[in-house]
Amino acid sequence: MSDKRIAGPEIERLIQLLAKVPGLGPRSARRAALHMIKKKEQLMAPLAAALTEASEKVTVCSICGNVDTVDPCSICSDPRRDPSLLIVVEDVSDLWALERASVMNARYHVLGGTLSPLDGVGPDDLNIKSLVDRVAAGGITELILAVNATVEGQTTAHYITDQLADFDVRITRLAHGVPVGGELDYLDEGTLSAALRARTQF
Amino acid sequence: MSDKRIAGPEIERLIQLLAKVPGLGPRSARRAALHMIKKKEQLMAPLAAALTEASEKVTVCSICGNVDTVDPCSICSDPRRDPSLLIVVEDVSDLWALERASVMNARYHVLGGTLSPLDGVGPDDLNIKSLVDRVAAGGITELILAVNATVEGQTTAHYITDQLADFDVRITRLAHGVPVGGELDYLDEGTLSAALRARTQF
Repeated sequence: MSDKRIAGPEIERLIQLLAKVPGLGPRSARRAALHMIKKKEQLMAPLAAALTEASEKVTVCSICGNVDTVDPCSICSDPRRDPSLLIVVEDVSDLWALERASVMNARYHVLGGTLSPLDGVGPDDLNIKSLVDRVAAGGITELILAVNATVEGQTTAHYITDQLADFDVRITRLAHGVPVGGELDYLDEGTLSAALRARTQF
Repeated sequence: MSDKRIAGPEIERLIQLLAKVPGLGPRSARRAALHMIKKKEQLMAPLAAALTEASEKVTVCSICGNVDTVDPCSICSDPRRDPSLLIVVEDVSDLWALERASVMNARYHVLGGTLSPLDGVGPDDLNIKSLVDRVAAGGITELILAVNATVEGQTTAHYITDQLADFDVRITRLAHGVPVGGELDYLDEGTLSAALRARTQF
């Protein structure tokens, strides 16, 4: 917006804050603000209440690093989850993605990022010590390293494997291969060669 | 999200509401929610407050139909605005767009849409009567119909012109032509032929 006062400062401030939401820019923030002003009762007031409630109640699980309104989170305190299976993820968004796939009835451990010396992220900046403590406490037989297939993700996976060398725990990683529904033509050589090497009986 | 409970119902509800914001879908709503949870103090709490304040204070101007926190809006009550010049727009977003261009020191009249018989939108559903009343009250010498260059916009423009036939007011419309910075190759024939017909001395 220009510095010229178009609408009230309350609306300007709303637009400025909306523009900071990932997925919205200055232009779509204006559109979103206007849409919400028009849908005041259906969207704006409920969203304000939901944000207030979430910002008051949301907390980080002291066991796994997940976000929830209770601590321990609802996954950690779910008695139906297999306590021997732990999936290690970089971020809560990865945890949500795996939960949507809902194949595993496991628990999680959120690292909060990946090792990245260039960005100054070392082992102490991630939830690695708490992971080692969980494994050391016993009861976990398999650790699935569901980190991203990036250099940082793989470096982090190797570091964690080293830290857990003394424990009797099976460490696995996600399979590499062709995404379901993916076309070979669009895949990089690394994925294709991994998929070829890990080919299975038809 | 699946029906499986991942995070608390407060977070689920926040994601559901965020997904209704134009520009955000289910996927980006999850990303936005997670980002806001991480930036609770910098973004989530301020946005909650801004939404609450805006939803309490924002009102529609009884003169022009603009949205503001005061009624009459800050444009209608601005004494530096030329009272003889009125720009008719379809929507508040068009008003904002024209204000950003800030060429005219005029006042506005927001129709709230366009005539669209197929969608059941007739003259009584738009702020046309209040527009005629404003013109009838006198003092307005020029009416700029800044409606969209669509069939509905042009139909609405013609209807308004008919309604104001008895008044001594100059009715103008926005120029058609090549957008500034636009490439001819990407323009439709209608725009190109309009630009050719309305060519000006170089």
